[in-house]
Amino acid sequence: MKILVINCGSSSLKYQLIDMEDKKVLAKGLAERIGIEGGRVKYEAAGKDEIVIEEMLADHKAALKIVLDSLQHAEYGAVKSLDEIDAVGHRVVHGGEAFAESVIIDEKVMKAINDNVEIAPLHNPPNIIGIEACKEIMGDIPMVAVFDTAFHQTIPALNYIYALPYEYYEKYKVRRYGFHGTSHQYITERAAEMLGKNLDDVNLITCHLGNGSSISAVVGGKCFDTTMGFTPLEGLAMGTRTGDMDPAIVPFIMDKENLSTEEMSNVMNKKSGVLGISGVSSDFRDLEEAAEKGNERAQLALDIFENRVRKFIGAYLTEMDHCDGIIFTAGVGENSISTRERVAGGLASLGIKIDRDKNDMRGKEAVISADDSSIPVLVIPTNEELKIAMETAKLL
Amino acid sequence: MKILVINCGSSSLKYQLIDMEDKKVLAKGLAERIGIEGGRVKYEAAGKDEIVIEEMLADHKAALKIVLDSLQHAEYGAVKSLDEIDAVGHRVVHGGEAFAESVIIDEKVMKAINDNVEIAPLHNPPNIIGIEACKEIMGDIPMVAVFDTAFHQTIPALNYIYALPYEYYEKYKVRRYGFHGTSHQYITERAAEMLGKNLDDVNLITCHLGNGSSISAVVGGKCFDTTMGFTPLEGLAMGTRTGDMDPAIVPFIMDKENLSTEEMSNVMNKKSGVLGISGVSSDFRDLEEAAEKGNERAQLALDIFENRVRKFIGAYLTEMDHCDGIIFTAGVGENSISTRERVAGGLASLGIKIDRDKNDMRGKEAVISADDSSIPVLVIPTNEELKIAMETAKLL
Repeated sequence: MKILVINCGSSSLKYQLIDMEDKKVLAKGLAERIGIEGGRVKYEAAGKDEIVIEEMLADHKAALKIVLDSLQHAEYGAVKSLDEIDAVGHRVVHGGEAFAESVIIDEKVMKAINDNVEIAPLHNPPNIIGIEACKEIMGDIPMVAVFDTAFHQTIPALNYIYALPYEYYEKYKVRRYGFHGTSHQYITERAAEMLGKNLDDVNLITCHLGNGSSISAVVGGKCFDTTMGFTPLEGLAMGTRTGDMDPAIVPFIMDKENLSTEEMSNVMNKKSGVLGISGVSSDFRDLEEAAEKGNERAQLALDIFENRVRKFIGAYLTEMDHCDGIIFTAGVGENSISTRERVAGGLASLGIKIDRDKNDMRGKEAVISADDSSIPVLVIPTNEELKIAMETAKLL
Repeated sequence: MKILVINCGSSSLKYQLIDMEDKKVLAKGLAERIGIEGGRVKYEAAGKDEIVIEEMLADHKAALKIVLDSLQHAEYGAVKSLDEIDAVGHRVVHGGEAFAESVIIDEKVMKAINDNVEIAPLHNPPNIIGIEACKEIMGDIPMVAVFDTAFHQTIPALNYIYALPYEYYEKYKVRRYGFHGTSHQYITERAAEMLGKNLDDVNLITCHLGNGSSISAVVGGKCFDTTMGFTPLEGLAMGTRTGDMDPAIVPFIMDKENLSTEEMSNVMNKKSGVLGISGVSSDFRDLEEAAEKGNERAQLALDIFENRVRKFIGAYLTEMDHCDGIIFTAGVGENSISTRERVAGGLASLGIKIDRDKNDMRGKEAVISADDSSIPVLVIPTNEELKIAMETAKLL
């Protein structure tokens, strides 16, 4: 079974074609700058060189057409014909309260995804466009929606209701949803396997640390709490996002800087986080380099980021009777040896100990804690595309 | 030495006259509804009945005049003349970055307090009015300002800088200040005494739980972190305040409900918290009663409040190499046996154990944890007025 995984952003389309027999990626790539000047499609079949097709991409449909043509290209293709592709798995950011699991896409599902545009105005519309483009070109091929929010739907009211007038939840569905769910779920399942535990018995703290970051408390294999909330702004300080802060700052800054709600949202989402603190970069590699050269605000940004990670780990430990593992994943979690060392090493008061030799690696599955650590610490590279393909295959 | 302690709100004036020899309260009371219909002054001298004087109170000066007349009243007074009063200690909410300690009030201090009106527009103006009224009536009597924020000035940048554009800190002094500092400091000092530790060596988590609530991480006797932030809105869910929430909710609700920044601030400060969740009350006694009768949202509000307290305790444990004590204080912390039992009892995974018999009391200093608890849990009734008087005496 071959499955095409599609992840549409407002001007981009990421894709992977995965063979489910051996979970091998047959081809992958990215269409960029859709609808604007300088469009291009990157395409790379397994074992072959990357191709870059530079061409104006009028819309997502035009981009997808180039992707599908490339996939069946005589020279650099990955399949002989589109008939070999059995299904398409779509990443959909916001499933709201309607979806606690992946679903086969039909008219009812499309309506529900559309209903969630109100609470995910930036994210769901490109996902919808991607689904529609696929349908137009690929006809009746089975399609599955895999939601970033689904894994978090098991979070209890205790953790999803905000201390706001309750009517905002009833009228506007303002509540904690959580994001990165496909990633948290994938590493939860892998961690249970690595730890030799039944999924239903495993308690974990999963740290997805990248440009966007979130941490989840997983109890009995199910999500119990997570740091992102109504939107992906809440929780940790991120590349460009504030994470938690006194909500009273929002009206204060709007008044002082004379900002509209949209402008303030933009500041909080695009100009804040470690970029805002440091004034240097949203990229953690740049920050580490600047900090090493003595840039104090770059160091401060890293310190703030890492301290918040530690504090959420401490907070989530109170939500479980024991913890089987603390897991690091995503760009920073998989690759930053120093971040892992400082975050987990700073938890010595909880009996957590990192083995510096074991931690001295990037991007591989491994236990990095010392044998006498009170809680095992693991690195598990995330694979959202594979998880989307697995969910899609499961539903067919 | 006799010290008059004054705490002015926008339409109120709380006072205590304290004899520093034996720390006895000679008289205390409250002037209410200053500047509006139905003004009245409550006055109670030690060992005598409470007097209530009902009278229109034009301003804080008028209220203070009645208080001072009462204090030297032939029949129910507490002193023969005002000459017996050696100094006045004023509670001032916001010391900003200017004050890490209490200070004797002079012109320079008044200017600095005035400078902080910008970041504490609701709190500092009545404090200033109270100081000025005292000066007008009591002349050259020494006066001391004791700041709610001072104890928290030792918090490192790591915990006081928000992940916002750094210029907001530079231009507007947007940072974590923390509040309830006089209370956190008082119970820190008392806890060190009760635990037989030097103040400089004691690590504590101090939980001031009342209608407004905050928790502090105290490391080596100094504040290292606290839940309230730029304003007293951040952190725990409170009687009517949101505490932490996704900051993106602020512009979202403003758009949906067509609210101005001022209206939104009002919703977050006055209509949220456990009142907003439950729709029942901001008073924890009412919520417990309603929850017992089966009101699910009242129960949910209590659950959310208590879970956040536990999570902050867990978070703050990661900020210290060991913890000498978790302290409960203020209205709920001193008096709610069930809240203490559920909060601390819910920390069994950290080895914390409550002794139900020891916990079965209200409003007294006591260790309430079991002998084999990993961390001692204490109740220490706060006494902000006494602390203000002590600070005032110390400076004279």
